[in-house]
Amino acid sequence: MATRKGKTIFLEKKPRIIANAAAVGKKEGEGPLGKEFDLVFSDDKLGLPSWEKAESELLKRAVEKALLNAATEKNEVDAIFSGDLLDQCIGSSFGLRSLKIPVCGLYGACSTMALSLCTASLAIETGGFDCCVAATCSHFCSAEKQFRYPLEYGGQRTPTAQWTVTGAGAAVLKNSKKSASPYIDKIHLGTICDLGITDANNMGAAMAPAAKKTITDFLCDTGTSPSDYDMILTGDLGKVGSDLLKELMLREEGIDLSSVHNDCGLLIFDREAQDVHAGGSGCGCSASVLCSYILNRFRNGFFKKVLFVATGALMSPVSSLQGESIPGIAHAVLIKSDNN
Amino acid sequence: MATRKGKTIFLEKKPRIIANAAAVGKKEGEGPLGKEFDLVFSDDKLGLPSWEKAESELLKRAVEKALLNAATEKNEVDAIFSGDLLDQCIGSSFGLRSLKIPVCGLYGACSTMALSLCTASLAIETGGFDCCVAATCSHFCSAEKQFRYPLEYGGQRTPTAQWTVTGAGAAVLKNSKKSASPYIDKIHLGTICDLGITDANNMGAAMAPAAKKTITDFLCDTGTSPSDYDMILTGDLGKVGSDLLKELMLREEGIDLSSVHNDCGLLIFDREAQDVHAGGSGCGCSASVLCSYILNRFRNGFFKKVLFVATGALMSPVSSLQGESIPGIAHAVLIKSDNN
Repeated sequence: MATRKGKTIFLEKKPRIIANAAAVGKKEGEGPLGKEFDLVFSDDKLGLPSWEKAESELLKRAVEKALLNAATEKNEVDAIFSGDLLDQCIGSSFGLRSLKIPVCGLYGACSTMALSLCTASLAIETGGFDCCVAATCSHFCSAEKQFRYPLEYGGQRTPTAQWTVTGAGAAVLKNSKKSASPYIDKIHLGTICDLGITDANNMGAAMAPAAKKTITDFLCDTGTSPSDYDMILTGDLGKVGSDLLKELMLREEGIDLSSVHNDCGLLIFDREAQDVHAGGSGCGCSASVLCSYILNRFRNGFFKKVLFVATGALMSPVSSLQGESIPGIAHAVLIKSDNN
Repeated sequence: MATRKGKTIFLEKKPRIIANAAAVGKKEGEGPLGKEFDLVFSDDKLGLPSWEKAESELLKRAVEKALLNAATEKNEVDAIFSGDLLDQCIGSSFGLRSLKIPVCGLYGACSTMALSLCTASLAIETGGFDCCVAATCSHFCSAEKQFRYPLEYGGQRTPTAQWTVTGAGAAVLKNSKKSASPYIDKIHLGTICDLGITDANNMGAAMAPAAKKTITDFLCDTGTSPSDYDMILTGDLGKVGSDLLKELMLREEGIDLSSVHNDCGLLIFDREAQDVHAGGSGCGCSASVLCSYILNRFRNGFFKKVLFVATGALMSPVSSLQGESIPGIAHAVLIKSDNN
């Protein structure tokens, strides 16, 4: 049975991530993690007639590849936990439609990969689910069109803006004690934080306070400090949000993250060479980085303990047009490995 | 520990619904269930400057009223499971922002009330969560604006169209053996079904196959038949979808639902007198009916066993404009009571 300290859930079954896969677009494939991804598509439309259909296809491909890597058939999966950034989460619904697997739809904006791991872990922890998939996706073009400007307009981007990742990640979780795979040790559902940031081109600043709260609460609940982790990995704060997080943590909590912190939005692109301003973002950012580079390093013994904290900005174009500030949320999972 | 038969999860802890509340708009208050609702607002904007803000406020009021009915403080709630129909689920994010409770964001379109009960039940079943809230909301005006036409345009509605409910429902679930409250006995996450319906003004027809699949699978997994239930209650199939469901069940599965089936979309409005065509719809439809009329009848001993099957149409305006058909999903929870 799971137990709780503060807001952190200590899992008993500790579901294993028996396999993972990431599917990304051309730009992501040309970035520093290019060789880590399972699938890189040179055509951002994947041969399909719309960006939205391409986003769905990316998710489907990532899930199918993860299941292949897990040597697991679709009918062995008890449920998929997934969501995305598109209105009414059509990236997920259409991407998963043909798989004939029960679906738990999620919405956590860019925090979705952590949220899907949290909920899939809870399902397995009950004993009622044996094998679950956690997955999410995003697409630069569908996100720009929906959240910002028509792509053809070629709008100038501000220095604080981030570049939505075209990518999807999927992790296969299983109730298994035997596997040498990394496992989910603890989960932590975040609380919405809103410090009044209204600049929709500065998501990093809007999400940093939520990351700070979740990391601080998690360290407190578990009686640990940053040096206990190989990495504290945020989702997609980018350069602005990452700097802000470290400054807030140091100044307000006296916690120095500098030696262990990294951010998926900083890892996935070469910010200068690839002209992505403050870094990567989108559900697919933390999903594709976690489900390739990070989990691969668990499998080869390089990592043993990573706190994965994906952050989400819970606004919409409508809420921003109505003058609302941007609520942030950060969900966390502690991933561990017994490998030596 | 929970167990599984087929796709149905047999819960061990059987979380109690210790309290519930529904908050609705004027039209819903004037309908057949008017006296059942906790809060009826004559101003559909609740004094706020936008319909979206009003929708968020409805959700917040329903959650706060449910907690009041449960004599439970906000800081006693371990997590809220919620989502809605608005782009990026801003109904929930902004509605829950001030509560300072961990949030698990969901997307299930009009199936959200069942999905939130499923996920909240799983959380409690792990032992790591003691008290959770399951909630959702919708608003006629924000939905019309987003999914159909500007309200001011006064577009003619087709006979198969349904009327989005302005309403929110919230249920407080607790890990408790002692209470005389109704409890969640079993849960069932649905599988996406898409039979190629493309008419976004006929959601009932798009969702009926998903309801059929979930109900058929549930009855098979549990070895039960319709006569074992006081009611099999679908979310918001309305008149067209309900008739279709009963016909499909009888013709293709040989199961006669006619004596026990009802639908929240048929219960909430007087279809003729209130001019709502095929009936009510929206996340708030099944949420406000379940969290008032239905659960109240458990509390006074009238109901002992209801299978609640909320259905969702997982399309968006963009997917429909791109010529996509409408995928449906139906999640189910079996609610029982030991009251005599």
